[in-house]
Order: sequence, then C-alpha cells, then structure tokens
Amino acid sequence: MQSVDLIIHARWIVPIRPRSVLRDHALAVHGGHIRAIGPDEEIRARYTAAHTTQLDHHVLMPGLVNAHTHAAMTLMRGLADDLPLRTWLHEHIWPVEGRFVSPEFVAMGTELAVVEMLRGGTTAFNDMYFFPEAAAEVAQRMGMRATIGHVIIDFPTAYAANADACLQAAADLLPRLRQMPLIRQSIAPHAPYTVGDAGLRGARDLAKVEDLPVHMHVHETACEVQEATDRDGMRPLARLARLGLLDQHFLAVHMTQLNDEDLAICRDSGLRVAHCPESNLKLASGMAAIAVLRQQGIGLAIGTDGAASNNDLDMLGELRTAALLAKGVSGDPTAFPAWEALEAATLGGAEAIGWGAETGSLETGKAADCIAIDLDHPATFPVYDPVSQVVYCAGRDQVSHVWVNGNPRIVEGRAVDWDTQDLFARARGWAQRIREKDNDA
Amino acid sequence: MQSVDLIIHARWIVPIRPRSVLRDHALAVHGGHIRAIGPDEEIRARYTAAHTTQLDHHVLMPGLVNAHTHAAMTLMRGLADDLPLRTWLHEHIWPVEGRFVSPEFVAMGTELAVVEMLRGGTTAFNDMYFFPEAAAEVAQRMGMRATIGHVIIDFPTAYAANADACLQAAADLLPRLRQMPLIRQSIAPHAPYTVGDAGLRGARDLAKVEDLPVHMHVHETACEVQEATDRDGMRPLARLARLGLLDQHFLAVHMTQLNDEDLAICRDSGLRVAHCPESNLKLASGMAAIAVLRQQGIGLAIGTDGAASNNDLDMLGELRTAALLAKGVSGDPTAFPAWEALEAATLGGAEAIGWGAETGSLETGKAADCIAIDLDHPATFPVYDPVSQVVYCAGRDQVSHVWVNGNPRIVEGRAVDWDTQDLFARARGWAQRIREKDNDA
Repeated sequence: MQSVDLIIHARWIVPIRPRSVLRDHALAVHGGHIRAIGPDEEIRARYTAAHTTQLDHHVLMPGLVNAHTHAAMTLMRGLADDLPLRTWLHEHIWPVEGRFVSPEFVAMGTELAVVEMLRGGTTAFNDMYFFPEAAAEVAQRMGMRATIGHVIIDFPTAYAANADACLQAAADLLPRLRQMPLIRQSIAPHAPYTVGDAGLRGARDLAKVEDLPVHMHVHETACEVQEATDRDGMRPLARLARLGLLDQHFLAVHMTQLNDEDLAICRDSGLRVAHCPESNLKLASGMAAIAVLRQQGIGLAIGTDGAASNNDLDMLGELRTAALLAKGVSGDPTAFPAWEALEAATLGGAEAIGWGAETGSLETGKAADCIAIDLDHPATFPVYDPVSQVVYCAGRDQVSHVWVNGNPRIVEGRAVDWDTQDLFARARGWAQRIREKDNDA
Repeated sequence: MQSVDLIIHARWIVPIRPRSVLRDHALAVHGGHIRAIGPDEEIRARYTAAHTTQLDHHVLMPGLVNAHTHAAMTLMRGLADDLPLRTWLHEHIWPVEGRFVSPEFVAMGTELAVVEMLRGGTTAFNDMYFFPEAAAEVAQRMGMRATIGHVIIDFPTAYAANADACLQAAADLLPRLRQMPLIRQSIAPHAPYTVGDAGLRGARDLAKVEDLPVHMHVHETACEVQEATDRDGMRPLARLARLGLLDQHFLAVHMTQLNDEDLAICRDSGLRVAHCPESNLKLASGMAAIAVLRQQGIGLAIGTDGAASNNDLDMLGELRTAALLAKGVSGDPTAFPAWEALEAATLGGAEAIGWGAETGSLETGKAADCIAIDLDHPATFPVYDPVSQVVYCAGRDQVSHVWVNGNPRIVEGRAVDWDTQDLFARARGWAQRIREKDNDA
C-alpha cells in the first residue's frame, strides 16, 4: 500500500485525454500531482490517503482554462453596456483606466476575478493587462495557475510611455515572476493596430530570447482588417507572419475575420486561436468560423475576455456558447460537438497558454488541477451522457470542488481560504470612485 | 394601517412597467395580488403584514415567462446531441416518443420541468406537447402559471390519430382545464409542414370560438420555407395569413427566416414572435433577426424550447443569449439592449401567452408573480446597473425567491413544498427505460 495525500472517488471521471468517461473511478493525488487513475477498487487496494473525497453524483474533470482575460476589468463590469464600440471605449473604459489603473487597481480587480473564476471551475487563466506583477502576485497568493502577459502597446498609459518602455518593463519583471511556481509569462503585444512594426519586432525578439509564448488580439473586427489593409496593403495576420511572430507559441485571440489566405497562414504557422464568443457577440465584433478552424486542424482554446465586455468570467457558460454558436454559424448541428468544446476549454487552453505538459487533462504525472461538477440538479437530470450535461446544461453553481495543484480551493461550493464578503468590502470603495468618475464624464 | 399578507423589501425593484429601477422600495401583496409598490418607509407606514421578507442585496422583478416549451421532453434531455437533425428526430426523439409518450410520461417530464423552471426564476410557461391535461394538472398542482397548448398534428401519434382527433380532444378537454385557476389554454397547430389546410382551418375556428391564442412553430429553418414554397407556391407565413390564422393572438415560434414580405405580414397582422435562440443555434436552424423585428415594432417573447434541443430550461441564460446574439447577428452592439431583453422575457412573454393583464410586470392589481435575484455574488459585483447585472451576468443559482400568485415556491434558494430527491427517484425508472430503448435503436 502506498500512502498519498488525497483520493477522490467520483461517479464519472472525464480525463479529456484519452477521450473517455470512466465510471466509478478514482484519482490518487500526491505532492500536488496525479499519482494514478483507476477503478475505485483498484485505487482502494493500492493506496491509502490522508484525505478522501467521495463524489457520488459528480463529474470529476480537469479544471477549465480561461485562455483570454483582462482580469482586473471586473472593476468595470457593467459600467457601460449596450453602447457603440467607440463610445464605450473613448467615453467610459479609457477614461476610467486613465484615471484609476495602478498596481493596486490591478490587484483588487484580479482578486475579484480569481474568486469568480475559481468558484466557477476555472483553474488557470491567461491574462493581458497593465501592471502584470500585481496580477501575478494575486494569482500566486490565491493558489490559481496563470500565464501573465507583459502587455506591449505604443501609446502612453498609466503603465508605460510607449512600446519600448513596455518591453523594458517586461525584461525587468521577468526574473521576479519566474520565482512564482504557479505563474508563467507571455509577451502580449496588444493588437496589430496598437503596436507598430518596431514594437512587434521587439516583442518577437524578447519572446524568442526568453522562450515565452506570444498572446495578442488579432482580427477582432472587420473594421480592423479593412483599415490595416487600406494602410499596409496587407491584412494584419499577413503582416504578423512577415514580421516573424507566428509559430506554435503564438496565441491569436478573437480571429472573427478569416479568409482563405488567413487560414493558410494559421495552418502553416501552427498558431493557436483563443475563441471569445460572448465578447465577440456583445461588442458585435463578428462570429469566428470555429467549424472551419476545426476542419483545418487549428488548435483551439476558449476565453471569456474581460468582464467589461462579457460580462462574466464563466467558462462553463462560455464553452456552451461556443458549442452552440459554432453550429449556428456553420449551419451544421454536428459542428463543434460537446467533446470538442470541452477539450478546447481544458487541454486546448492549457496547450495554448504554455501549460500543456502540466495541466488540461487528468493524466498520471500531471498537476492535480481538477474540478467536480455535481449533476444532481434539475437542469442536469437525467444523465444519459455526462459530457453532454456538462457542456449543454450544467451551471457554474454546480461546480462543487476545485483543486489547483492538489490544493483545495473550493470544497462543497465554499471557498477554502478567503472571505468573499471581506473582498467585496475592500472593493466597494473602488467601485464607488469609478462610478463617480464615469458619471462626471 | 391596512393589513396585508406579505411585504417584500428589496434593494432594487425592477417593475418592468414603467421601465425603472426603484431603490429601497417595497411590494405589498394581498390575496395573491400586488396591493402597492412604494418607498420602504411609505409601505411601512401604510401596511402591516403577516410576513415580511427583507432582500438587502437583491433585485425584485416579475417572474420570467418561458414563451415556448415542450416541458415533458426533460426526460429526453441529452439523449442524442450533436447529430444531424434528421438522425436526431427519426432515430432518437420520435422512436422514444412513439414508445413512451403517455399521460404518465407527460406528467413526470413536466414535473421535472416545473421544478427546473421555478428554481431558475420562471413563473409561467407556454407549453406545446401531447396529453396537455397531464401537463396542466402538474403545473396547477405545483403552483406554476402556464398556458397549455392543445397540439394539432396531421400524422398519428400516441395522443391522437390525426388533426381531426386532435381538435376533438381539444374541444373535449377545454372545459376541464378552464377549472384550473393557474392554467390558460391555446390551440397549438404544430407547424405549417405537419398540419394541412383543413387542420389549420379547424384550429383557427376553434381558437376563434373559444377565444384562445394560437401557438405554432413557423419558419424554423430555411429548408422548411424552401420546401413549402416549392410545393405551395408561397411561403408558410403567407399561407397562414391566407388561411386567416394571423392576428395579435398568434404566437409564431422561431421565425429564423424572414424576408420583407414576411415582415410586412408580421406588422400587418400584429402577430407576436417567440424567439428561442439556443435551440435555433443547437439545431443549426438559423438565427432570427431580432434587431429587425424590434425596429418593426413586432412584439417579442423569449422561450427555451424543449430540453432535448437546448438543453436546459434556464430563462436567465436564454435571455442573455438573446441579448448577445442579436448584437452579433445585426453587427450592432446597441441592438437588443439589456432592458429590451428583460422586457421580452417578462412582460413580452406574458402578453404573448395570454396572461398580459395578470402578470409580466410588477404593477398594482397584477398577480404577485415575482422573483428575487441575489446580486451578492462574485459574478455580479460591483453593481453599477442592476438590470445589466441581471441580463449579462446573473446565474439561475442567484434566484433566491420565487412567488407565483403571492404563493412562495422558492425561499432562500430552497423549494417550499416539493422534494427534488424524491422527484428524481420517481423519474429514474423512466430514464432507464428510455436509455434502453434508445440503445436498441
């Protein structure tokens, strides 16, 4: 008998790789990692555990991976909805950011985001925002895995004066963030229309030297593509290819506009796509051709985007919207079936954000980043197929347990080591000041 | 001081009509009806109540109205997903219906649906299925408001041999259902492609004589419209207009295919549209042009459709999908803003299903069909605009209280007078038999 830290018995385990539903199986966890997966009796016979969790009507699966966030924007959730894009940005989001964004703002907003995401079964996120150190510290302290992007942007912000200053800040910060075991880093040029060729070359070089992935908004709207084509004589994706940014470590976010030339670039470069369907709908940016991307074998992840344009950070809701919308857009009810959506929201996301070897599936040796979804609920009864229930019916409230690296973050629906009311009390002053500033505008 | 049954104090009341957010107001309820709405102090000064409910961080609003359901299909939820429409219907849904549908099946499936809907803040639904008496009895017994459709269909089912038999069953049943105070009725010809002209004329005449609304699937898919046009030389909606079915009491469900001629018919007739965005996406039926319908002033309601094609009966999720998708489809981020989506899911629905004078808004004299949504949750923090939070972020789990006709159905998130575990225990045998039959097919 081997002694392990934790054994989790579950009615169903969906390990993602291999694509299977294991009934009445258990997971043995030790030192934060998965030691074994097997039938209940086999695990009982081989292991004794300090802790045992019995999940009689739950799906145990890898934690969800939110492949695109601006976590701190929770503080601007619902501040200005249903507006034209320009009004929303120029009259609300940018003025508030210009006035308030600071390391303290980012820490507060990210803490709200981490609580919301963990509560909803997300165990890792891929962030792009100002003052990345503040976001990294919050994620590390609260026990959530993250890839933190060093944002690169040409125009002056509270964070940095220009792209060069952003690159310098990134280079300075890199060693410190490398000390945080739950944190990895990316270089995050904001978008083709906000970073010139010099900044992009700098981002490319820094990513190559430091062996980091690149995380960037690309082809979010038709307008962006048209304006760039008029100016540069080529589409933004072609420009990024020419600048040497595109390879399997490049994560292109949104990609609602794709012609055959773009698809060829995607295929040839091996880049991955982060699909943010709810943000794309809410801002009327466009609807990504997910069925086409899947047919072309392009790696797919799913993200919520920031809370100012979604407005929640609910990955179960997001993967459902992705699965539904892909069918509507393609006109094919077999497009992006439940299994593919679930893979994109777990392993696909982990691979896209540089954590593919460590998380995204329940496999021996990987980190024990796992969640339980309780299907004993009117919305998920009866259970003919647990994967269908998770993708098409389960709500974030049905996430009962969350472990990151074997560390329990949510147990029986309750936070293990933070007080949500205390968090709200600390955040309320920020919200009050933001409201006053927005009302003045 | 007047004595009333119940006073509900809430941080925010969203009465829907007028379009306003009342802060620190209260609702006085007596005899199942709304006696008054006013500021907390005013209500306290004028009324004493047997019961008082204090909702310190909640939105109190009218219950949601699910404008299109096949409630009993909960028993087939997730049985066969991600399949071509023909395979899904011919190899799964119809064989199971053919084998199992009976008054007992309908009662069981409807009970599951009522529990799911009440728990998620829906206080009224508009059903179309076989054995309508069974559905009506369940809704009345469980204290949920409903409009129950008498289905009319040409081909033989377990319920009736043909359209004439359906019409006869409806005529026979009408007086009995009239005895049920929470139940109203509609005539529900299934669809233009399943009911011939004779059946439609019969439905029209019965509806007129009995003063009932008509509830019908119309223009669900492009294929339906094309086949009908090839056969009849006119589009289905034009055929319904010619047959005299279309007026302000006609509820056209789906309507994903609309040309200018169709829009003119909608406008001229005063018909209303029930929009089922998630079912339309999942079955790849099409995406209704909600922004265009709104511009034309056509009355709009929102429905989930049945659990076999959605797969949940979550009206908060559905109205969010409707609000997001309308922007994506129109390319306009200001289309179908939060307020309009919330109105369609409450008052618009009530008007569409024949209960507009009694429910759908919190107004003096109307029934106390109301729900509380607790915004003290990471996904709805901070609150700059409670309506935005309800539409774009709140989950069904945040519905804390539900009253129908002043009768508490959910209190603090818990069912008042049913046992969900007992319900599941009774339903499990049905699910087991359905699974075996489906596996044999």
